[in-house]
Amino acid sequence: MSHNTFGKMLRITTWGESHGDLIGCVLDGCPPNIQITLKEIQFHLNRRKPGQSKYTTQRKEDDIVEIVSGVIKNDDNSYTTTGTPISLIIKNTNQRSKDYNDIEDKFRPGHADYTYMKKYGLRDPLGGGRSSARETAMRVAASGIARKIIPNIKIRAALTQIGPYAINRKVWDWNFIDQNPFFSPDSTIIEKWKDYLEEIRKDGDSTGAIIEVVAENVPIGLGEPIYGKLDQEIAAAVMSINAVKAVEIGAGFETASMKGSENADEIILENGITKFLSNNAGGILGGISTGQDIIVRFAVKPTSSILKPQRTIDSKDNETTIITRGRHDPCVGIRAVPIGEAMVALVLADQYLRNRGQIG
Amino acid sequence: MSHNTFGKMLRITTWGESHGDLIGCVLDGCPPNIQITLKEIQFHLNRRKPGQSKYTTQRKEDDIVEIVSGVIKNDDNSYTTTGTPISLIIKNTNQRSKDYNDIEDKFRPGHADYTYMKKYGLRDPLGGGRSSARETAMRVAASGIARKIIPNIKIRAALTQIGPYAINRKVWDWNFIDQNPFFSPDSTIIEKWKDYLEEIRKDGDSTGAIIEVVAENVPIGLGEPIYGKLDQEIAAAVMSINAVKAVEIGAGFETASMKGSENADEIILENGITKFLSNNAGGILGGISTGQDIIVRFAVKPTSSILKPQRTIDSKDNETTIITRGRHDPCVGIRAVPIGEAMVALVLADQYLRNRGQIG
Amino acid sequence: MSHNTFGKMLRITTWGESHGDLIGCVLDGCPPNIQITLKEIQFHLNRRKPGQSKYTTQRKEDDIVEIVSGVIKNDDNSYTTTGTPISLIIKNTNQRSKDYNDIEDKFRPGHADYTYMKKYGLRDPLGGGRSSARETAMRVAASGIARKIIPNIKIRAALTQIGPYAINRKVWDWNFIDQNPFFSPDSTIIEKWKDYLEEIRKDGDSTGAIIEVVAENVPIGLGEPIYGKLDQEIAAAVMSINAVKAVEIGAGFETASMKGSENADEIILENGITKFLSNNAGGILGGISTGQDIIVRFAVKPTSSILKPQRTIDSKDNETTIITRGRHDPCVGIRAVPIGEAMVALVLADQYLRNRGQIG
Amino acid sequence: MSHNTFGKMLRITTWGESHGDLIGCVLDGCPPNIQITLKEIQFHLNRRKPGQSKYTTQRKEDDIVEIVSGVIKNDDNSYTTTGTPISLIIKNTNQRSKDYNDIEDKFRPGHADYTYMKKYGLRDPLGGGRSSARETAMRVAASGIARKIIPNIKIRAALTQIGPYAINRKVWDWNFIDQNPFFSPDSTIIEKWKDYLEEIRKDGDSTGAIIEVVAENVPIGLGEPIYGKLDQEIAAAVMSINAVKAVEIGAGFETASMKGSENADEIILENGITKFLSNNAGGILGGISTGQDIIVRFAVKPTSSILKPQRTIDSKDNETTIITRGRHDPCVGIRAVPIGEAMVALVLADQYLRNRGQIG
Repeated sequence: MSHNTFGKMLRITTWGESHGDLIGCVLDGCPPNIQITLKEIQFHLNRRKPGQSKYTTQRKEDDIVEIVSGVIKNDDNSYTTTGTPISLIIKNTNQRSKDYNDIEDKFRPGHADYTYMKKYGLRDPLGGGRSSARETAMRVAASGIARKIIPNIKIRAALTQIGPYAINRKVWDWNFIDQNPFFSPDSTIIEKWKDYLEEIRKDGDSTGAIIEVVAENVPIGLGEPIYGKLDQEIAAAVMSINAVKAVEIGAGFETASMKGSENADEIILENGITKFLSNNAGGILGGISTGQDIIVRFAVKPTSSILKPQRTIDSKDNETTIITRGRHDPCVGIRAVPIGEAMVALVLADQYLRNRGQIG
Repeated sequence: MSHNTFGKMLRITTWGESHGDLIGCVLDGCPPNIQITLKEIQFHLNRRKPGQSKYTTQRKEDDIVEIVSGVIKNDDNSYTTTGTPISLIIKNTNQRSKDYNDIEDKFRPGHADYTYMKKYGLRDPLGGGRSSARETAMRVAASGIARKIIPNIKIRAALTQIGPYAINRKVWDWNFIDQNPFFSPDSTIIEKWKDYLEEIRKDGDSTGAIIEVVAENVPIGLGEPIYGKLDQEIAAAVMSINAVKAVEIGAGFETASMKGSENADEIILENGITKFLSNNAGGILGGISTGQDIIVRFAVKPTSSILKPQRTIDSKDNETTIITRGRHDPCVGIRAVPIGEAMVALVLADQYLRNRGQIG
Repeated sequence: MSHNTFGKMLRITTWGESHGDLIGCVLDGCPPNIQITLKEIQFHLNRRKPGQSKYTTQRKEDDIVEIVSGVIKNDDNSYTTTGTPISLIIKNTNQRSKDYNDIEDKFRPGHADYTYMKKYGLRDPLGGGRSSARETAMRVAASGIARKIIPNIKIRAALTQIGPYAINRKVWDWNFIDQNPFFSPDSTIIEKWKDYLEEIRKDGDSTGAIIEVVAENVPIGLGEPIYGKLDQEIAAAVMSINAVKAVEIGAGFETASMKGSENADEIILENGITKFLSNNAGGILGGISTGQDIIVRFAVKPTSSILKPQRTIDSKDNETTIITRGRHDPCVGIRAVPIGEAMVALVLADQYLRNRGQIG
Repeated sequence: MSHNTFGKMLRITTWGESHGDLIGCVLDGCPPNIQITLKEIQFHLNRRKPGQSKYTTQRKEDDIVEIVSGVIKNDDNSYTTTGTPISLIIKNTNQRSKDYNDIEDKFRPGHADYTYMKKYGLRDPLGGGRSSARETAMRVAASGIARKIIPNIKIRAALTQIGPYAINRKVWDWNFIDQNPFFSPDSTIIEKWKDYLEEIRKDGDSTGAIIEVVAENVPIGLGEPIYGKLDQEIAAAVMSINAVKAVEIGAGFETASMKGSENADEIILENGITKFLSNNAGGILGGISTGQDIIVRFAVKPTSSILKPQRTIDSKDNETTIITRGRHDPCVGIRAVPIGEAMVALVLADQYLRNRGQIG
């Protein structure tokens, strides 16, 4: 069972609520003798951190990660993994659960309030609790270690659409990603996105987005056929991120409209090296990596916490309306970019160890 | 680890190759005292069976399922489950591995040939083997039992797009599904699809498709937050079907373009009963079922076995071209309809037992 | 969950009842390119086979194993594993469920009849069904493959006690094991055991036994600390064999009476090679193999199927007495010898792959 | 995989080293709406706490547990579980790793030093680290919650042997257990044990022990046949405790010497209630609970940390001798009593939820 654990050989178990003192995770199964620094882990956390621009939630969190087990501290303040469980902790510094007081008894449409109440028979009086996206900080932290497991692996992501506005893929520039508040690879769309988000925010509304993750230097042969397929596990990993409603690999939904002669990626040799003439497969065939880039796209729905009144009911079955005040992202998809990277990193590292176990 | 096992409390393990004498599965964790008949299971298998129309592969398979353990036979020839592992077997009656002889040494673009060879260091001389869609017959067989676990559950699927031609959702008629060779819910599109498939076939080509699965009467509260989310597991289940490259829940990729005020499903009371005014969530919030219909869509790529020559290499690293003769589906998406139903049924039954375990 | 599955990376799932047409198992996660022959597997099965001497059950079973998936047949009739699930099947040739008719409605003391009925709410009308030791044939068959995974591993077992009569360890002779009907390593005890079993049988009674398994050439470093300890998993494996009530590693229960200065295995160097001066640890420290021989002992209770009348109740809650006719082993412990070997082999192979996965 | 996770539906994952700032665990899968208090959890921890008598280690630890997630705090300072992961933390207050400095480079015979070094390729410079029994504090803490899951369950344990001195079972008195520093149920043996431990301590040596755990009011039907047997999982749980080398259920190793007519527990009715005339089965038949008391015994070896010099090697393959100074238990078996209870509690609660899942 895996309520709160993800992975098979490399396993992450997360715990904690958005309004508690601490959140944390245990990363188990990590190989020994991997060198890590807090700085590397913090780098990824900082990219996900709220409050970095006016386009994300104004809730401020320092998100300082601590490693409390599973490593030996080296003289240069780096750490060496020991092969034992790595416990990571982040202190919540900005719990403002009073923001939630007025919604305490109403079910927010589009939120997990209703389903948690029906499943567990109780409601956390202090807000979103476990269903909050705060939990994803731990995934990003753990991925900072997972990224070190496969030599030379490179996993990056970009925001490719906000609301109806998609980027122009022809001008894709990875270097631009960290030079704008949206993780956009397209500098020409920034103004349009800014305007649209401004309009959305003024309107007390929110918007959806699409993220694309690309993994390079993935070894051939990762993935287990049938029920441990690499694309299956990536889909699961990405779908486990809050607010994600769709995922595709390679050409994805486009393949439905394609002919076999267009879709299959032909193979040639280039200086003796196998080369595919296209990558509609997104780097995965039969559930196993081909060595091409792995390409994953996913859609994040608009947050349901908006300032516009919505019809709902309360826990005593009265009809009512609700306005969700508080510090919310007008486009939660922006901060999902590093989370998408993290989930792909965790899946790949897990499959890498599993492949090494079975095949040697 | 789960190379060939799917599910946590209700687990299916499949085995067998397309060219062997037998394929089979073990369904473990099934509750005792469930009444099943071979006829019910066979019903679902027959819908998936090849050779039923000229639009699917001409490979003929009877696909007669046998139950060899885990049940007591009743006087009326029905069976009662005993709570022990249910072993199901299907005899392969039509192994024509010689069809594959000419491709034996070449990697078929878009197939698992290349990745299996690179991962396992060998190639099954008799064809697709384990990567063949033949394995999915066992999923459909097992789902015939899984469907009996949740009282009143109703799981149906339809083909909603072939190549560029999507159905008209306004004329959706579930009754029409089994009255046409495509599982189409729209009678007005049949001619267009027939013409298109005829053209594709004459051209020695193939085409993709989109399938939609709808589960009704799903109890509220199924799904485990964070890493056992119902949508996550459905995505994994569906992505594990051969040739699937994309999956979405509810409004799916459309949510990226939507505003929060459009997307969140408002809640009202109707005669004292909770009712949602829309179902963009596809019946799942926070990873847990809401009681609304669960709606899943997935894309199946065009089969890569086509009669058009494609560039490729062989196992000795020579460039070559390949034509994949044999009996292939011009649109493998058609037969994926009952498979999609099966995977959703297996996930729901598993989550139902898990929910009962934790919550009681 | 693992009702009927054992292992993590190398997994065996068994199915089938004693009175069905077939029993079988699926061995999943086996590395590719391992060479196996039916003869090797059959060798182990033949050692467990009933009806081989008058000291075991007279139920005759050929126990001929078939490999139905997961391998490629080589020209010399050997097989090469492909890395996909290996399905093994044995046909039951001698189902005499009518023997059980008179006990059908009574609970046999010491059997699983009562607990199965209370748990599952039904009773298999044809006898022991899933709780029969017949299931262990599949473990032995699967272990024939598992033994090939660790290079040079050698796993043997012996019967060291029948009833109150223990062997003399000083005359231990592995070569004698397969030269007597008891797997005894001590030729001097044979007559005593024969006499005792003859007496037991005449009396319509049964007796317990102790088995010792020794694994040689075990690589250092197998086992995962805390909850995947090698001794923990061996204990679980052995305890899962029917009728086993106790298990110990190395000096086992004797360590309770020992002093630390007696118990700890001192370490020296002999020609530069690490050598332990004793092996009270049974080859495992902190849950991890030391490279010494792994030594496991377990007790098998006397079968409860005896010809002496015993007090019991029936399923309608009437008091009654029962005599269990049929073909039973007077000492089930004898046939547990190859089963004990098999379980240790499965655990070691699984841990070997897991260690390779994490450590490389 | 489960390096550091135990259980299937109710899962405990532990983390932390003996010399770190914190140790902790995550208890996942706990049902919601269970009422717990810190006092209840602390009660069990206090029984395991070191430094409580001169017969256990003088290392002083307060072992104050904190609940950092997975609960709602009630007005009376009790907690209600929410069904989300419960994170428990204990601060280490007394890390004296300098005690270990002199042994830093030598392998302590009977310890995990050697195997950890060989497996992971490194040695924790600060002592036992993860292989320390300190980790078991978290098992005891988690069991304080697990005990609340099965209504009316009662799980107690006693020390029944120290060195060669076993208790007299005829004077067994549960009330006496917490009135002596040994958890002895026999008041007549106290002086003998005191004298023996005094002698052992003066001698700089240590001794083994035997613990017996008894679970009352266990529902009938817990346990899964074949590979999820209740006795199998209890054996695994108990074997995962540091220094345990043997485990038995009910009559255990004694059954080897018994006849079937002596061993099988006959069944009668007493006032219409099923009653067994003995309990050689230890409350488990066919891997499933019978409703009788579950009886488990296990042996704990003498600690290998002794003041007597022992032969060993160091990490540079030099022969040497070692004396392990520090604060060690002369009889680690004493503190294993509450740990044994804890492991049985965790297994029973897990199986209870699993049984509810499958059977309803």
